[in-house]
Amino acid sequence: MPPPSLRNVDFTQVIEWNNGVVRRVDDYLAGEEPLEIRSGNRSLGLTMRTPGNDPELVAGFLFTEGIISRREQLLSVEVTEDARVRKAARANRIQVRLGRGAKIPTLARARKFSAGSACGVCGKASIDDLRRRGVRRPGLALRFDPELLCQLPEKLHAAQPIFGRTGGLHAAALFDSNGGLLVLREDIGRHNAVDKIVGWALLQGLIPLENHVCLVSGRGGFEIVQKVLVAGVPVLASVSAPSSLAVQLAREMGITLIGFLRGQRFVIYSGEQRIASAIAAPSSGPGTAGPGTARA
Amino acid sequence: MPPPSLRNVDFTQVIEWNNGVVRRVDDYLAGEEPLEIRSGNRSLGLTMRTPGNDPELVAGFLFTEGIISRREQLLSVEVTEDARVRKAARANRIQVRLGRGAKIPTLARARKFSAGSACGVCGKASIDDLRRRGVRRPGLALRFDPELLCQLPEKLHAAQPIFGRTGGLHAAALFDSNGGLLVLREDIGRHNAVDKIVGWALLQGLIPLENHVCLVSGRGGFEIVQKVLVAGVPVLASVSAPSSLAVQLAREMGITLIGFLRGQRFVIYSGEQRIASAIAAPSSGPGTAGPGTARA
Repeated sequence: MPPPSLRNVDFTQVIEWNNGVVRRVDDYLAGEEPLEIRSGNRSLGLTMRTPGNDPELVAGFLFTEGIISRREQLLSVEVTEDARVRKAARANRIQVRLGRGAKIPTLARARKFSAGSACGVCGKASIDDLRRRGVRRPGLALRFDPELLCQLPEKLHAAQPIFGRTGGLHAAALFDSNGGLLVLREDIGRHNAVDKIVGWALLQGLIPLENHVCLVSGRGGFEIVQKVLVAGVPVLASVSAPSSLAVQLAREMGITLIGFLRGQRFVIYSGEQRIASAIAAPSSGPGTAGPGTARA
Repeated sequence: MPPPSLRNVDFTQVIEWNNGVVRRVDDYLAGEEPLEIRSGNRSLGLTMRTPGNDPELVAGFLFTEGIISRREQLLSVEVTEDARVRKAARANRIQVRLGRGAKIPTLARARKFSAGSACGVCGKASIDDLRRRGVRRPGLALRFDPELLCQLPEKLHAAQPIFGRTGGLHAAALFDSNGGLLVLREDIGRHNAVDKIVGWALLQGLIPLENHVCLVSGRGGFEIVQKVLVAGVPVLASVSAPSSLAVQLAREMGITLIGFLRGQRFVIYSGEQRIASAIAAPSSGPGTAGPGTARA
Protein backbone atom coordinates (compact mmCIF):
# COMPACT_ATOMS: atom_id res chain seq x y z
CA MET A 1 0.00 0.00 0.00
CA PRO A 2 1.24 3.50 -0.76
CA PRO A 3 1.87 5.70 2.28
CA PRO A 4 -1.01 8.04 3.08
CA SER A 5 -0.70 11.59 1.86
CA LEU A 6 0.42 14.15 4.40
CA ARG A 7 -2.58 16.21 3.32
CA ASN A 8 -4.55 13.71 5.39
CA VAL A 9 -3.56 15.39 8.61
CA ASP A 10 -3.46 18.97 9.82
CA PHE A 11 -1.57 20.23 12.80
CA THR A 12 -2.82 22.94 15.16
CA GLN A 13 -2.74 24.30 18.68
CA VAL A 14 -5.74 23.82 20.95
CA ILE A 15 -6.72 24.36 24.57
CA GLU A 16 -7.33 21.40 26.83
CA TRP A 17 -9.60 21.71 29.87
CA ASN A 18 -9.02 18.79 32.22
CA ASN A 19 -10.88 18.87 35.52
CA GLY A 20 -10.25 22.60 35.86
CA VAL A 21 -6.63 22.50 34.68
CA VAL A 22 -6.17 24.45 31.45
CA ARG A 23 -3.25 24.22 29.05
CA ARG A 24 -2.34 24.78 25.43
CA VAL A 25 -1.36 21.63 23.54
CA ASP A 26 -0.50 20.67 19.98
CA ASP A 27 -2.99 18.47 18.19
CA TYR A 28 -3.65 16.64 14.94
CA LEU A 29 -6.79 17.15 12.90
CA ALA A 30 -8.30 14.92 10.23
CA GLY A 31 -7.96 16.74 6.91
CA GLU A 32 -11.14 17.87 5.18
CA GLU A 33 -11.36 19.74 1.86
CA PRO A 34 -13.97 20.04 -0.87
CA LEU A 35 -13.42 17.99 -4.04
CA GLU A 36 -15.02 18.82 -7.36
CA ILE A 37 -15.48 16.21 -10.08
CA ARG A 38 -15.52 17.61 -13.60
CA SER A 39 -16.24 16.08 -16.99
CA GLY A 40 -15.24 18.54 -19.70
CA ASN A 41 -16.53 21.91 -18.52
CA ARG A 42 -19.27 20.31 -16.52
CA SER A 43 -19.35 19.81 -12.77
CA LEU A 44 -20.55 16.34 -11.78
CA GLY A 45 -20.56 17.16 -8.12
CA LEU A 46 -18.81 18.60 -5.12
CA THR A 47 -18.09 16.56 -2.02
CA MET A 48 -16.24 17.11 1.23
CA ARG A 49 -13.52 14.54 1.71
CA THR A 50 -10.18 13.85 3.35
CA PRO A 51 -7.51 14.54 0.70
CA GLY A 52 -5.57 11.53 -0.56
CA ASN A 53 -6.30 8.79 -3.12
CA ASP A 54 -8.61 11.17 -4.93
CA PRO A 55 -8.62 9.41 -8.32
CA GLU A 56 -9.70 6.25 -6.48
CA LEU A 57 -12.41 8.18 -4.66
CA VAL A 58 -13.72 9.60 -7.92
CA ALA A 59 -13.55 6.25 -9.75
CA GLY A 60 -15.37 4.58 -6.88
CA PHE A 61 -17.98 7.32 -6.64
CA LEU A 62 -18.74 7.21 -10.38
CA PHE A 63 -19.03 3.42 -10.24
CA THR A 64 -21.04 2.95 -7.04
CA GLU A 65 -23.45 5.75 -8.00
CA GLY A 66 -24.07 4.17 -11.39
CA ILE A 67 -22.59 6.94 -13.58
CA ILE A 68 -20.25 4.32 -15.01
CA SER A 69 -20.95 0.61 -14.93
CA ARG A 70 -17.62 -0.71 -16.28
CA ARG A 71 -13.95 0.18 -15.90
CA GLU A 72 -13.72 0.90 -19.64
CA GLN A 73 -16.17 3.81 -19.37
CA LEU A 74 -13.63 5.75 -17.34
CA LEU A 75 -11.15 6.87 -20.00
CA SER A 76 -9.09 8.97 -17.61
CA VAL A 77 -9.22 10.39 -14.11
CA GLU A 78 -6.66 12.98 -13.03
CA VAL A 79 -5.99 16.06 -11.00
CA THR A 80 -6.88 19.12 -13.08
CA GLU A 81 -4.14 20.70 -15.18
CA ASP A 82 -6.04 23.92 -15.69
CA ALA A 83 -3.41 26.64 -15.20
CA ARG A 84 -6.11 29.22 -14.55
CA VAL A 85 -6.98 27.44 -11.32
CA ARG A 86 -5.02 28.55 -8.27
CA LYS A 87 -2.33 26.01 -7.50
CA ALA A 88 -3.48 25.17 -3.98
CA ALA A 89 -6.96 24.47 -5.31
CA ARG A 90 -5.87 22.33 -8.26
CA ALA A 91 -5.57 19.28 -6.06
CA ASN A 92 -9.26 19.69 -5.20
CA ARG A 93 -10.47 19.37 -8.76
CA ILE A 94 -10.47 16.01 -10.51
CA GLN A 95 -11.03 15.89 -14.24
CA VAL A 96 -12.55 12.75 -15.74
CA ARG A 97 -13.11 11.64 -19.33
CA LEU A 98 -16.10 9.34 -19.67
CA GLY A 99 -16.61 6.87 -22.49
CA ARG A 100 -19.72 5.57 -24.26
CA GLY A 101 -22.43 4.30 -21.95
CA ALA A 102 -21.59 6.57 -19.02
CA LYS A 103 -24.76 8.10 -17.62
CA ILE A 104 -24.25 11.66 -16.49
CA PRO A 105 -27.07 12.59 -14.15
CA THR A 106 -29.19 15.57 -15.11
CA LEU A 107 -31.64 17.46 -12.99
CA ALA A 108 -34.31 16.89 -15.65
CA ARG A 109 -33.80 13.15 -15.49
CA ALA A 110 -33.76 13.14 -11.71
CA ARG A 111 -37.08 15.01 -11.68
CA LYS A 112 -38.65 12.80 -14.30
CA PHE A 113 -37.58 9.72 -12.46
CA SER A 114 -38.93 11.02 -9.20
CA ALA A 115 -42.27 11.95 -10.70
CA GLY A 116 -42.45 8.63 -12.51
CA SER A 117 -42.09 6.32 -9.54
CA ALA A 118 -45.74 5.39 -9.19
CA CYS A 119 -45.46 3.79 -5.79
CA GLY A 120 -43.79 6.87 -4.32
CA VAL A 121 -40.62 7.10 -2.32
CA CYS A 122 -39.93 4.17 -0.04
CA GLY A 123 -37.25 1.70 0.91
CA LYS A 124 -38.63 -0.87 -1.51
CA ALA A 125 -38.36 1.60 -4.40
CA SER A 126 -34.75 2.37 -3.45
CA ILE A 127 -33.96 -1.33 -3.61
CA ASP A 128 -35.81 -1.70 -6.95
CA ASP A 129 -33.70 1.16 -8.36
CA LEU A 130 -30.58 -0.86 -7.67
CA ARG A 131 -32.05 -3.88 -9.45
CA ARG A 132 -32.95 -1.70 -12.43
CA ARG A 133 -29.32 -0.61 -12.59
CA GLY A 134 -28.39 -4.26 -13.05
CA VAL A 135 -26.83 -4.79 -9.64
CA ARG A 136 -26.86 -8.52 -8.99
CA ARG A 137 -26.88 -10.79 -5.96
CA PRO A 138 -23.34 -11.81 -4.99
CA GLY A 139 -22.51 -15.48 -5.52
CA LEU A 140 -22.55 -18.04 -2.72
CA ALA A 141 -19.10 -19.55 -3.27
CA LEU A 142 -17.32 -17.69 -0.46
CA ARG A 143 -17.24 -19.30 2.99
CA PHE A 144 -15.63 -17.25 5.73
CA ASP A 145 -14.46 -18.52 9.09
CA PRO A 146 -16.00 -16.81 12.16
CA GLU A 147 -12.68 -16.84 14.06
CA LEU A 148 -11.00 -15.19 11.09
CA LEU A 149 -13.78 -12.61 10.96
CA CYS A 150 -13.09 -11.66 14.58
CA GLN A 151 -9.48 -10.87 13.70
CA LEU A 152 -10.32 -8.33 10.99
CA PRO A 153 -10.94 -5.25 13.20
CA GLU A 154 -7.49 -5.68 14.75
CA LYS A 155 -5.88 -6.04 11.33
CA LEU A 156 -7.66 -2.89 10.18
CA HIS A 157 -6.65 -0.99 13.29
CA ALA A 158 -3.02 -2.07 13.03
CA ALA A 159 -2.87 -0.85 9.44
CA GLN A 160 -4.55 2.51 10.10
CA PRO A 161 -1.95 5.24 9.93
CA ILE A 162 -3.99 8.16 11.21
CA PHE A 163 -7.15 7.19 12.98
CA GLY A 164 -5.52 6.60 16.32
CA ARG A 165 -3.97 10.03 16.21
CA THR A 166 -6.97 12.06 15.17
CA GLY A 167 -9.98 10.05 16.29
CA GLY A 168 -11.62 11.78 13.38
CA LEU A 169 -11.50 9.40 10.44
CA HIS A 170 -13.62 6.55 9.21
CA ALA A 171 -11.91 3.54 7.67
CA ALA A 172 -12.89 0.93 5.11
CA ALA A 173 -10.83 -2.11 4.20
CA LEU A 174 -10.92 -5.05 1.79
CA PHE A 175 -9.76 -8.51 2.83
CA ASP A 176 -9.32 -11.64 0.73
CA SER A 177 -10.91 -14.98 1.56
CA ASN A 178 -7.99 -15.84 3.86
CA GLY A 179 -8.34 -12.63 5.84
CA GLY A 180 -5.37 -10.96 4.14
CA LEU A 181 -5.60 -7.17 3.95
CA LEU A 182 -5.73 -5.91 0.37
CA VAL A 183 -6.37 -2.23 0.84
CA LEU A 184 -7.30 0.22 3.56
CA ARG A 185 -8.56 3.77 3.07
CA GLU A 186 -9.57 6.48 5.52
CA ASP A 187 -11.83 9.48 5.16
CA ILE A 188 -13.85 11.91 7.22
CA GLY A 189 -16.87 10.45 5.40
CA ARG A 190 -17.59 6.75 5.71
CA HIS A 191 -19.10 6.61 2.20
CA ASN A 192 -15.92 8.20 0.83
CA ALA A 193 -13.75 5.58 2.52
CA VAL A 194 -15.87 2.88 0.84
CA ASP A 195 -15.73 4.68 -2.53
CA LYS A 196 -11.93 4.82 -2.21
CA ILE A 197 -11.54 1.07 -1.76
CA VAL A 198 -14.07 0.29 -4.50
CA GLY A 199 -12.34 2.79 -6.80
CA TRP A 200 -9.00 1.17 -6.02
CA ALA A 201 -10.42 -2.23 -6.94
CA LEU A 202 -12.01 -0.86 -10.13
CA LEU A 203 -8.74 0.73 -11.28
CA GLN A 204 -6.91 -2.53 -10.47
CA GLY A 205 -9.39 -4.52 -12.56
CA LEU A 206 -10.59 -6.53 -9.55
CA ILE A 207 -14.34 -5.94 -9.90
CA PRO A 208 -16.49 -7.94 -9.08
CA LEU A 209 -14.90 -8.62 -5.69
CA GLU A 210 -16.64 -11.95 -5.31
CA ASN A 211 -14.18 -13.53 -2.88
CA HIS A 212 -13.72 -10.58 -0.58
CA VAL A 213 -14.88 -9.18 2.72
CA CYS A 214 -15.36 -5.46 3.32
CA LEU A 215 -14.98 -4.05 6.84
CA VAL A 216 -16.10 -0.53 7.74
CA SER A 217 -15.76 1.45 10.94
CA GLY A 218 -18.90 2.91 12.50
CA ARG A 219 -22.51 2.47 11.50
CA GLY A 220 -23.75 0.90 8.28
CA GLY A 221 -26.67 2.50 6.44
CA PHE A 222 -28.36 1.81 3.11
CA GLU A 223 -25.75 3.67 1.06
CA ILE A 224 -22.84 1.67 2.41
CA VAL A 225 -24.54 -1.66 1.63
CA GLN A 226 -25.46 -0.31 -1.81
CA LYS A 227 -21.87 0.66 -2.64
CA VAL A 228 -20.50 -2.69 -1.47
CA LEU A 229 -23.17 -4.56 -3.45
CA VAL A 230 -22.34 -2.67 -6.65
CA ALA A 231 -18.73 -3.82 -6.22
CA GLY A 232 -19.92 -7.44 -5.93
CA VAL A 233 -18.57 -7.96 -2.40
CA PRO A 234 -20.47 -10.83 -0.73
CA VAL A 235 -19.65 -10.04 2.93
CA LEU A 236 -19.89 -6.63 4.64
CA ALA A 237 -18.88 -6.31 8.28
CA SER A 238 -19.07 -3.34 10.62
CA VAL A 239 -18.03 -2.73 14.21
CA SER A 240 -21.35 -1.04 14.91
CA ALA A 241 -25.07 -1.29 14.06
CA PRO A 242 -26.73 -1.34 10.64
CA SER A 243 -29.97 0.49 9.87
CA SER A 244 -33.33 -1.09 9.10
CA LEU A 245 -33.05 -0.35 5.38
CA ALA A 246 -29.47 -1.62 5.27
CA VAL A 247 -30.69 -4.96 6.67
CA GLN A 248 -33.67 -5.03 4.28
CA LEU A 249 -31.40 -4.40 1.29
CA ALA A 250 -28.87 -6.98 2.47
CA ARG A 251 -31.59 -9.63 2.84
CA GLU A 252 -33.24 -8.92 -0.51
CA MET A 253 -29.92 -8.94 -2.36
CA GLY A 254 -28.43 -11.88 -0.47
CA ILE A 255 -25.33 -10.15 0.87
CA THR A 256 -23.91 -11.25 4.23
CA LEU A 257 -24.25 -8.37 6.69
CA ILE A 258 -22.36 -8.49 9.99
CA GLY A 259 -22.65 -5.91 12.79
CA PHE A 260 -21.12 -5.32 16.23
CA LEU A 261 -17.93 -7.15 15.24
CA ARG A 262 -16.00 -6.69 18.49
CA GLY A 263 -13.67 -9.08 20.26
CA GLN A 264 -14.95 -12.64 19.97
CA ARG A 265 -18.53 -11.69 19.14
CA PHE A 266 -20.64 -10.47 16.23
CA VAL A 267 -24.22 -10.30 15.00
CA ILE A 268 -25.34 -11.69 11.63
CA TYR A 269 -28.20 -9.74 10.06
CA SER A 270 -28.27 -11.49 6.72
CA GLY A 271 -26.62 -14.22 4.64
CA GLU A 272 -25.44 -16.46 7.48
CA GLN A 273 -24.70 -19.31 5.05
CA ARG A 274 -21.38 -17.66 4.12
CA ILE A 275 -20.17 -17.71 7.71
CA ALA A 276 -18.94 -21.27 8.01
CA SER A 277 -19.12 -23.87 10.78
CA ALA A 278 -21.57 -23.69 13.67
CA ILE A 279 -23.88 -21.24 11.94
CA ALA A 280 -25.78 -24.07 10.24
CA ALA A 281 -28.10 -24.83 13.17
CA PRO A 282 -28.29 -22.09 15.78
CA SER A 283 -30.18 -22.79 18.97
CA SER A 284 -33.42 -20.89 18.95
CA GLY A 285 -36.88 -20.45 20.41
CA PRO A 286 -38.70 -18.22 22.85
CA GLY A 287 -37.05 -17.81 26.18
CA THR A 288 -33.50 -18.00 24.90
CA ALA A 289 -33.38 -14.28 24.24
CA GLY A 290 -35.39 -11.11 24.52
CA PRO A 291 -35.51 -7.84 22.62
CA GLY A 292 -32.23 -6.05 22.53
CA THR A 293 -30.25 -9.09 23.57
CA ALA A 294 -28.05 -8.70 20.52
CA ARG A 295 -26.64 -5.49 22.05
CA ALA A 296 -25.37 -7.20 25.19
CA MET B 1 -40.73 17.02 23.95
CA PRO B 2 -43.10 14.82 21.96
CA PRO B 3 -42.45 11.09 22.20
CA PRO B 4 -40.38 9.73 19.33
CA SER B 5 -42.25 8.10 16.51
CA LEU B 6 -42.41 4.33 16.52
CA ARG B 7 -41.23 4.50 12.93
CA ASN B 8 -37.86 5.30 14.46
CA VAL B 9 -37.22 1.68 15.36
CA ASP B 10 -37.56 -1.62 13.53
CA PHE B 11 -37.67 -5.01 15.10
CA THR B 12 -36.08 -8.11 13.61
CA GLN B 13 -34.48 -11.47 14.32
CA VAL B 14 -30.73 -11.87 13.96
CA ILE B 15 -28.05 -14.46 14.68
CA GLU B 16 -25.50 -13.83 17.39
CA TRP B 17 -22.10 -15.52 17.26
CA ASN B 18 -20.40 -15.32 20.64
CA ASN B 19 -17.12 -17.14 21.00
CA GLY B 20 -18.43 -20.06 18.96
CA VAL B 21 -21.87 -20.15 20.57
CA VAL B 22 -24.58 -19.37 18.04
CA ARG B 23 -28.17 -18.37 18.77
CA ARG B 24 -31.08 -16.49 17.26
CA VAL B 25 -32.06 -13.36 19.13
CA ASP B 26 -34.51 -10.49 18.67
CA ASP B 27 -33.03 -7.11 17.96
CA TYR B 28 -33.89 -3.48 17.35
CA LEU B 29 -32.74 -1.58 14.28
CA ALA B 30 -32.50 2.16 13.72
CA GLY B 31 -35.14 3.12 11.15
CA GLU B 32 -33.97 4.39 7.77
CA GLU B 33 -36.18 5.46 4.86
CA PRO B 34 -35.76 7.84 1.93
CA LEU B 35 -37.44 11.24 2.20
CA GLU B 36 -38.30 13.38 -0.80
CA ILE B 37 -38.81 17.14 -0.50
CA ARG B 38 -41.16 18.61 -3.10
CA SER B 39 -42.11 22.15 -3.99
CA GLY B 40 -45.09 22.08 -6.34
CA ASN B 41 -44.34 19.34 -8.87
CA ARG B 42 -40.64 19.80 -8.40
CA SER B 43 -38.30 17.58 -6.39
CA LEU B 44 -35.87 19.56 -4.26
CA GLY B 45 -33.98 16.49 -3.16
CA LEU B 46 -34.02 13.01 -1.78
CA THR B 47 -32.28 12.07 1.44
CA MET B 48 -32.04 8.97 3.60
CA ARG B 49 -33.20 9.68 7.13
CA THR B 50 -34.66 8.11 10.25
CA PRO B 51 -38.43 8.76 10.08
CA GLY B 52 -39.85 11.13 12.67
CA ASN B 53 -40.01 14.93 12.97
CA ASP B 54 -39.88 15.18 9.20
CA PRO B 55 -41.34 18.70 8.88
CA GLU B 56 -38.59 19.87 11.25
CA LEU B 57 -35.98 18.04 9.21
CA VAL B 58 -37.19 19.66 6.01
CA ALA B 59 -37.47 23.13 7.57
CA GLY B 60 -33.97 22.79 8.99
CA PHE B 61 -32.54 21.47 5.73
CA LEU B 62 -34.05 24.30 3.66
CA PHE B 63 -32.73 26.84 6.16
CA THR B 64 -29.22 25.53 6.79
CA GLU B 65 -28.66 24.91 3.07
CA GLY B 66 -29.66 28.48 2.25
CA ILE B 67 -32.81 27.71 0.21
CA ILE B 68 -34.74 29.83 2.69
CA SER B 69 -33.15 32.47 4.88
CA ARG B 70 -36.15 33.39 7.06
CA ARG B 71 -39.02 31.54 8.72
CA GLU B 72 -41.53 33.56 6.66
CA GLN B 73 -40.25 32.06 3.41
CA LEU B 74 -41.59 28.67 4.43
CA LEU B 75 -45.33 29.08 3.86
CA SER B 76 -46.14 25.46 4.67
CA VAL B 77 -44.43 22.14 5.20
CA GLU B 78 -46.49 18.97 5.38
CA VAL B 79 -46.66 15.32 4.57
CA THR B 80 -47.97 14.92 1.03
CA GLU B 81 -51.73 14.55 0.56
CA ASP B 82 -51.40 13.23 -2.97
CA ALA B 83 -53.91 10.37 -3.12
CA ARG B 84 -52.11 8.89 -6.15
CA VAL B 85 -49.12 8.11 -3.94
CA ARG B 86 -49.22 4.74 -2.20
CA LYS B 87 -50.22 5.21 1.42
CA ALA B 88 -47.08 3.69 2.94
CA ALA B 89 -44.94 6.00 0.84
CA ARG B 90 -46.88 9.19 1.58
CA ALA B 91 -45.05 9.66 4.85
CA ASN B 92 -41.81 9.77 2.85
CA ARG B 93 -42.81 12.75 0.76
CA ILE B 94 -42.90 16.23 2.28
CA GLN B 95 -44.56 19.01 0.34
CA VAL B 96 -43.38 22.56 0.95
CA ARG B 97 -44.69 25.92 -0.23
CA LEU B 98 -41.96 28.51 -0.50
CA GLY B 99 -42.51 32.26 -0.39
CA ARG B 100 -40.74 35.18 -2.06
CA GLY B 101 -36.99 35.19 -1.66
CA ALA B 102 -36.58 31.42 -1.42
CA LYS B 103 -33.73 30.27 -3.65
CA ILE B 104 -34.44 26.96 -5.28
CA PRO B 105 -31.15 25.47 -6.46
CA THR B 106 -30.84 24.72 -10.15
CA LEU B 107 -28.24 22.65 -11.90
CA ALA B 108 -27.52 25.59 -14.21
CA ARG B 109 -26.81 27.88 -11.27
CA ALA B 110 -24.70 25.25 -9.55
CA ARG B 111 -22.60 24.88 -12.71
CA LYS B 112 -22.27 28.59 -13.27
CA PHE B 113 -21.20 29.10 -9.70
CA SER B 114 -18.65 26.35 -9.91
CA ALA B 115 -17.14 27.68 -13.12
CA GLY B 116 -17.18 31.21 -11.74
CA SER B 117 -15.16 30.65 -8.60
CA ALA B 118 -11.90 32.04 -9.85
CA CYS B 119 -9.73 30.65 -7.07
CA GLY B 120 -11.01 27.14 -7.62
CA VAL B 121 -12.40 24.75 -5.08
CA CYS B 122 -10.89 24.96 -1.63
CA GLY B 123 -11.80 25.27 2.01
CA LYS B 124 -11.40 29.04 1.88
CA ALA B 125 -13.91 29.26 -0.97
CA SER B 126 -16.37 27.13 0.99
CA ILE B 127 -16.11 29.54 3.90
CA ASP B 128 -16.47 32.56 1.59
CA ASP B 129 -19.68 31.03 0.20
CA LEU B 130 -21.16 31.11 3.67
CA ARG B 131 -20.24 34.76 4.09
CA ARG B 132 -21.81 35.55 0.72
CA ARG B 133 -25.02 33.93 1.98
CA GLY B 134 -25.03 36.48 4.79
CA VAL B 135 -24.15 34.09 7.60
CA ARG B 136 -22.76 36.21 10.44
CA ARG B 137 -20.42 35.67 13.36
CA PRO B 138 -22.33 34.74 16.52
CA GLY B 139 -22.30 37.36 19.30
CA LEU B 140 -19.99 37.20 22.29
CA ALA B 141 -22.58 37.65 25.03
CA LEU B 142 -22.84 34.00 26.04
CA ARG B 143 -20.49 32.72 28.75
CA PHE B 144 -20.73 29.01 29.52
CA ASP B 145 -19.39 27.27 32.58
CA PRO B 146 -16.88 24.42 31.93
CA GLU B 147 -18.36 22.25 34.69
CA LEU B 148 -21.81 22.70 33.18
CA LEU B 149 -20.41 21.80 29.76
CA CYS B 150 -19.13 18.50 31.15
CA GLN B 151 -22.66 17.57 32.26
CA LEU B 152 -24.24 17.94 28.81
CA PRO B 153 -23.33 14.51 27.37
CA GLU B 154 -25.01 12.81 30.33
CA LYS B 155 -28.10 14.96 29.93
CA LEU B 156 -28.23 14.10 26.25
CA HIS B 157 -27.74 10.41 26.92
CA ALA B 158 -30.41 10.34 29.64
CA ALA B 159 -32.91 11.94 27.26
CA GLN B 160 -32.14 9.65 24.31
CA PRO B 161 -35.02 7.23 23.88
CA ILE B 162 -33.50 4.92 21.28
CA PHE B 163 -29.77 5.23 20.95
CA GLY B 164 -28.97 2.88 23.81
CA ARG B 165 -31.13 0.21 22.28
CA THR B 166 -29.95 0.36 18.70
CA GLY B 167 -26.45 1.77 18.87
CA GLY B 168 -27.27 3.03 15.42
CA LEU B 169 -28.40 6.63 15.77
CA HIS B 170 -26.70 9.98 15.95
CA ALA B 171 -28.09 12.61 18.28
CA ALA B 172 -28.08 16.39 18.34
CA ALA B 173 -29.39 18.52 21.19
CA LEU B 174 -29.88 22.18 22.04
CA PHE B 175 -29.27 23.50 25.56
CA ASP B 176 -29.99 26.94 26.98
CA SER B 177 -27.37 29.06 28.76
CA ASN B 178 -28.10 27.29 32.06
CA GLY B 179 -27.56 23.86 30.56
CA GLY B 180 -31.26 23.09 30.34
CA LEU B 181 -32.22 20.71 27.52
CA LEU B 182 -34.51 22.35 24.96
CA VAL B 183 -34.73 19.72 22.29
CA LEU B 184 -33.11 16.42 21.32
CA ARG B 185 -33.36 14.71 17.95
CA GLU B 186 -31.94 11.46 16.63
CA ASP B 187 -31.20 10.28 13.12
CA ILE B 188 -29.08 7.76 11.24
CA GLY B 189 -27.38 10.81 9.69
CA ARG B 190 -25.66 13.31 11.95
CA HIS B 191 -26.43 16.20 9.59
CA ASN B 192 -30.13 15.21 9.69
CA ALA B 193 -30.14 15.25 13.50
CA VAL B 194 -28.73 18.79 13.36
CA ASP B 195 -31.24 19.85 10.69
CA LYS B 196 -34.04 18.52 12.89
CA ILE B 197 -33.09 20.63 15.90
CA VAL B 198 -32.47 23.72 13.74
CA GLY B 199 -35.79 23.14 11.97
CA TRP B 200 -37.51 22.79 15.33
CA ALA B 201 -36.02 26.12 16.44
CA LEU B 202 -36.97 27.80 13.15
CA LEU B 203 -40.58 26.63 13.40
CA GLN B 204 -40.68 27.79 17.04
CA GLY B 205 -39.40 31.24 16.03
CA LEU B 206 -36.23 30.87 18.11
CA ILE B 207 -33.66 31.71 15.40
CA PRO B 208 -30.99 33.07 15.92
CA LEU B 209 -30.12 30.78 18.84
CA GLU B 210 -27.67 33.26 20.30
CA ASN B 211 -27.75 32.01 23.89
CA HIS B 212 -27.61 28.31 23.18
CA VAL B 213 -25.20 25.42 23.05
CA CYS B 214 -25.48 22.60 20.50
CA LEU B 215 -24.14 19.13 21.34
CA VAL B 216 -23.71 16.44 18.70
CA SER B 217 -22.69 12.82 19.00
CA GLY B 218 -19.78 11.61 16.92
CA ARG B 219 -17.41 13.56 14.70
CA GLY B 220 -17.85 17.14 13.59
CA GLY B 221 -17.06 18.11 10.02
CA PHE B 222 -17.46 21.32 8.03
CA GLU B 223 -21.14 20.76 7.29
CA ILE B 224 -22.10 20.40 10.94
CA VAL B 225 -20.33 23.64 11.89
CA GLN B 226 -21.95 25.33 8.88
CA LYS B 227 -25.46 24.28 9.89
CA VAL B 228 -24.97 25.38 13.49
CA LEU B 229 -23.52 28.73 12.34
CA VAL B 230 -26.48 29.41 10.08
CA ALA B 231 -28.73 28.92 13.12
CA GLY B 232 -26.67 31.50 15.04
CA VAL B 233 -25.57 29.07 17.79
CA PRO B 234 -22.38 30.41 19.42
CA VAL B 235 -21.13 27.13 21.00
CA LEU B 236 -20.89 23.72 19.31
CA ALA B 237 -19.68 20.73 21.32
CA SER B 238 -19.00 17.17 20.22
CA VAL B 239 -17.93 14.03 22.04
CA SER B 240 -15.40 13.29 19.30
CA ALA B 241 -12.94 15.06 16.97
CA PRO B 242 -13.59 17.88 14.50
CA SER B 243 -12.01 18.02 11.05
CA SER B 244 -9.41 20.52 9.88
CA LEU B 245 -11.94 22.50 7.84
CA ALA B 246 -14.44 22.48 10.71
CA VAL B 247 -11.81 24.10 12.91
CA GLN B 248 -10.84 26.59 10.18
CA LEU B 249 -14.47 27.58 9.69
CA ALA B 250 -15.07 27.86 13.44
CA ARG B 251 -12.04 30.12 13.86
CA GLU B 252 -12.86 32.38 10.90
CA MET B 253 -16.48 32.77 11.99
CA GLY B 254 -15.77 33.06 15.70
CA ILE B 255 -17.88 30.14 16.90
CA THR B 256 -16.76 28.22 19.99
CA LEU B 257 -15.87 24.67 18.95
CA ILE B 258 -15.43 21.98 21.61
CA GLY B 259 -14.30 18.40 20.94
CA PHE B 260 -13.68 15.24 22.97
CA LEU B 261 -16.24 16.30 25.58
CA ARG B 262 -15.99 13.23 27.84
CA GLY B 263 -16.15 13.01 31.62
CA GLN B 264 -14.35 15.97 33.20
CA ARG B 265 -12.33 16.88 30.12
CA PHE B 266 -12.69 18.60 26.77
CA VAL B 267 -10.64 20.28 24.05
CA ILE B 268 -11.32 23.84 22.84
CA TYR B 269 -10.52 24.35 19.16
CA SER B 270 -11.90 27.85 18.79
CA GLY B 271 -13.63 30.68 20.67
CA GLU B 272 -12.33 29.96 24.16
CA GLN B 273 -13.53 33.34 25.44
CA ARG B 274 -17.08 31.97 25.78
CA ILE B 275 -15.97 29.21 28.14
CA ALA B 276 -15.82 31.09 31.41
CA SER B 277 -13.37 31.01 34.36
CA ALA B 278 -9.90 29.55 34.16
CA ILE B 279 -9.71 29.69 30.37
CA ALA B 280 -8.45 33.28 30.41
CA ALA B 281 -4.78 32.43 30.96
CA PRO B 282 -3.88 28.85 30.13
CA SER B 283 -0.40 27.65 30.97
CA SER B 284 1.61 27.28 27.82
CA GLY B 285 5.01 26.91 26.21
CA PRO B 286 7.21 24.24 24.69
CA GLY B 287 7.71 21.21 26.85
CA THR B 288 4.29 21.27 28.43
CA ALA B 289 2.84 19.15 25.67
CA GLY B 290 3.73 17.32 22.51
CA PRO B 291 1.87 16.39 19.34
CA GLY B 292 -1.27 14.41 19.96
CA THR B 293 -1.35 15.22 23.64
CA ALA B 294 -4.88 16.47 23.27
CA ARG B 295 -5.96 12.84 22.61
CA ALA B 296 -4.71 11.56 25.94
